[in-house]
Parts: sequence; structure tokens; C-alpha cells
Amino acid sequence: MTAPLRVALDQGTGLSGDPASSLDRLRERARAAAADGAALLVTPEMSLTGYNIGSEAARLAEPADGPLFDAVSRIAADTGVAIVYGFPELADGNVYNAVRFVDAAGSSRALYRKTHLFGDLDRDLFSAGDELVVQVDLGAHRIGLLVCYDVEFPEAVRAHALAGTTLLVVPTALMGPNTSVATLLVPARAMENQIHLAYVNRCDTEGDLDYVGLSALVGPDGTEILRAGPTEALLVGDVDPAATEASRAELSYLGDRRPELYSAPATAPAP
Amino acid sequence: MTAPLRVALDQGTGLSGDPASSLDRLRERARAAAADGAALLVTPEMSLTGYNIGSEAARLAEPADGPLFDAVSRIAADTGVAIVYGFPELADGNVYNAVRFVDAAGSSRALYRKTHLFGDLDRDLFSAGDELVVQVDLGAHRIGLLVCYDVEFPEAVRAHALAGTTLLVVPTALMGPNTSVATLLVPARAMENQIHLAYVNRCDTEGDLDYVGLSALVGPDGTEILRAGPTEALLVGDVDPAATEASRAELSYLGDRRPELYSAPATAPAP
Repeated sequence: MTAPLRVALDQGTGLSGDPASSLDRLRERARAAAADGAALLVTPEMSLTGYNIGSEAARLAEPADGPLFDAVSRIAADTGVAIVYGFPELADGNVYNAVRFVDAAGSSRALYRKTHLFGDLDRDLFSAGDELVVQVDLGAHRIGLLVCYDVEFPEAVRAHALAGTTLLVVPTALMGPNTSVATLLVPARAMENQIHLAYVNRCDTEGDLDYVGLSALVGPDGTEILRAGPTEALLVGDVDPAATEASRAELSYLGDRRPELYSAPATAPAP
Repeated sequence: MTAPLRVALDQGTGLSGDPASSLDRLRERARAAAADGAALLVTPEMSLTGYNIGSEAARLAEPADGPLFDAVSRIAADTGVAIVYGFPELADGNVYNAVRFVDAAGSSRALYRKTHLFGDLDRDLFSAGDELVVQVDLGAHRIGLLVCYDVEFPEAVRAHALAGTTLLVVPTALMGPNTSVATLLVPARAMENQIHLAYVNRCDTEGDLDYVGLSALVGPDGTEILRAGPTEALLVGDVDPAATEASRAELSYLGDRRPELYSAPATAPAP
């Protein structure tokens, strides 16, 4: 029997364009998460720099092993909490919208670059990542990483489920009026793949964007284990593999697929 | 500009195992739908025979062009309403869980055999269909057909959207306690594919199954245009291509896909 994993969702951010303030905030939140017994703290998309910051994203971009990583590594090791954070990654002259998983010992365990870019907002600033399924095994939990718009594509989450992801972690920056992404698509993704899904959003105003909060931890039957409102919050809940097993014992979406039909060419209308 | 298509959802059924009563009911409903200005009437899964009827399904099975089709064809032609109905189809010694689209002139335009079988309930009675995307063009509307459990698979609905389906019609027999299929997965399918989706359920008790109603017509942004309660109802609403165009002008899920990544092998966990 695998023990539940306690996860903390950090709905909120530091000052946009001011990584020092974001790191101060992260340190405080990691301590609070530790006090609540959490083993993993998840923060929003681009949590260390801000998201809607125009050319500042390129100026603040740094290599995956740069000073931002060093600072997060110390926070994780000091608090004993694994951390998923977002930042603009500089690599080979490109800037990626990246998230990194740092374990409770302060070691980097995974780096994911957003693969589905959202409109001009992303395309003006970032190159698209080309690796869809990035995972970390934490005990018996297989944790996958996606960013924001990625989760709106059923193919992306299905690829994770087929690769054994049991908890999908999705930092996001969802703005109004798109609340149904959080309330409809996110629970559907968890349910149709019978996985846990942690979706962690901002809730402030940044330039012309009003982020809607509504961060959530959803269980494998689509149940909302945690659901934030529109304001700052640190929510803590358990990812329990027993829920996954119960869901899959009753019904197996993955097993009932007909993959041989999905790539078939569409037929023309016929009588 | 394509004119809206008025669709009627017939939440309800005749007596299980008694096609004559189901045809009487269908005639009455088609007249009511015509009076409401509907061009298309959609009925539940296996609407002419009942669904949870055990070996009666095999006994009542008939070829696609059998007496049930003749009767429906007359009703459609008499009322001027196109009809989607469900029945057990006998073909080459197999029995399929099938739906047929009969146009307002009484001609058959499409036959779909359920491709995703649901548990022993389906597997004990039916062979699985092997053609996923079956469509009918009605004016500028491209109408696709799926049955019940099929719609719970994002791959099935995506295949339709990629093949140009603008209205997906899904006869179903959804039983308790699975209401979140109707309230969560069905709206998500419409939204993530930016299509209209008509989901039409039973609402009676049949053997050990209690069907939950909750039939719905959902728009391309996930909005519920129609939503039934748990009891019998004939709901009428419009499928407006302008809503599809508006949704896709703002955002294109189909265009923003990364198909080259979806078939890539999963990567092993890495630092």
C-alpha cells in the first residue's frame, strides 16, 4: 500500500519582475507547507518572475542551473519540501516557459518546457518545448509536469496517463473570462484518465490580465479534493493511491481505449 | 452564413422489449418536435427496443434495413423531421449496438456501430463496431454519431472534430451514480473541440439500472444550451454555426495541437 502524498497548492505570487520578492514569498510558503505536513509545494506558471511581463521575461531568463535554482534548492532542503516552480529558462539562445521539480533534498529531478504555446502572449516570448512527457518518481507516485494551456489538450494528459503518471502537476496563469478551463476541463482531464491533477493558478492582476484563481486538486473520479476561490490561499490535500485503485477497479478508461481506430483516416459521409 | 439547425432531444423511451410501443412514442415525439420547428430529433441509445434487456437484444435484432427502419422512415417522411434512433443491428451473424440517421425524406443517411463497449453489459450482447467516424452532411452542418461510452474517450470526439464534425449526436443510456459523465465530460468534449454536442439519455428504471436523464445540448465554448433534469422531457434548441465561428476565431484548439508529440514514446524519469 502506497502512502498518500500531501500536496500544497500555492495560489499567489510575488511582485512581477522581482524574483527576490518571489523567493522571499516561496520561502515563507514552503515553511507553511512543511508545517501543514506537505511533501510537495506547487506554485503557478512563471512563479519566480511573473508571466505577463513582456521583454522582462527574456531579461530575467537564466539557465536551469542558474541562481534561481540555487535559491529554490536551498529553500527545499531547508524546509524538507519538494517544490515545483516556474521560470523563463535560457538555453541555446532560446527562452522557454519552464517548470522545474526540486526534491526535498534540494536536487533537481525534472525540467519541463511548455509544449503548447498560448497565443501571442506565449509566442512573442517563448520557444515551444519538444518533450511532452516529463516525469519524476517520488516513492510510488509518478508525478508528471505540464504548464497551463498544455492541460487543455486531452492528448497531452492522455500521453501522461499512458506513461504511468499518477499525479499531474500543472502550474498555470489562467485569466478571465476563461474560468471553465479550471472548472470543467481540469476535472474532466483527471476523470477521463483516472489520475490526480493539481492545477495551481495566480489570482492577481498583471498588466491587462486578471487571473481567476480557482486552483484545484482533483481526484481520479473527477471529485474536487481542493478548490480555491479567487484570492490568495495555501491549500493542502492528500493524493491517495487508494482512490486511483478504486476508480480503476470499477472501470478502466485506459484499458477500454480502441487505439487502432484513433489514427484511421476519417470516412466521407456515406448512406 | 449557415442557418442554425433546430434540434430536439427526446429524453425518454417506450416500454423495454416492446418496439411497437417505442415506435408509437417516436411518432408522437416527432410530431411534437415538428411543431416546435425542429429539423432533427435525437433519441436515446437502443431507443426502439430498450437497452438493459439481456438476450432480448439478440431476439429483437434485425438488419439495418429491416422493419424498424421502414417504420422510422415513414415517421420521418410524415413529420418532415430527421431522426436518430438506436436499435440492435443484426449483420453477418453479429449484433451491434447501432444508431441510424434517417433524414426528413425518410432516407437512411448513416449507420454507426458503437465502438467502445461498456463492461459486461455491452460485451455480453454486442460486437464492437470498427468504424469510428461516421458523418452526415445536412446543409452546411456536418453531423457525427457516437453512442454513450464512446463519448467518454477524448480520442473519439477529437477524431470527429478533426474530420469536420460540427454537431456530434450521442444517444446514451447513462445510469447512476455516473452523473459526472453528463455534467463534466460531455461539456468538456464540446469545449475542447469547439463543437456542438447533443447527448440524449433515458430517465427510467430498466432492470437494475436507474438512468439519470441530464440530456444536454452543449455549445462550442462548453455552455449548456439545453439541460434536462431527471424526468421525461422534449427539449428543443438551436445549433448555431455562428457560435462555432466565434469560438474558433478567439482560439483554435485544433490548430494549436502538437500532433508530432502525441505519438512519441514516453520518456523515463530523468534529472
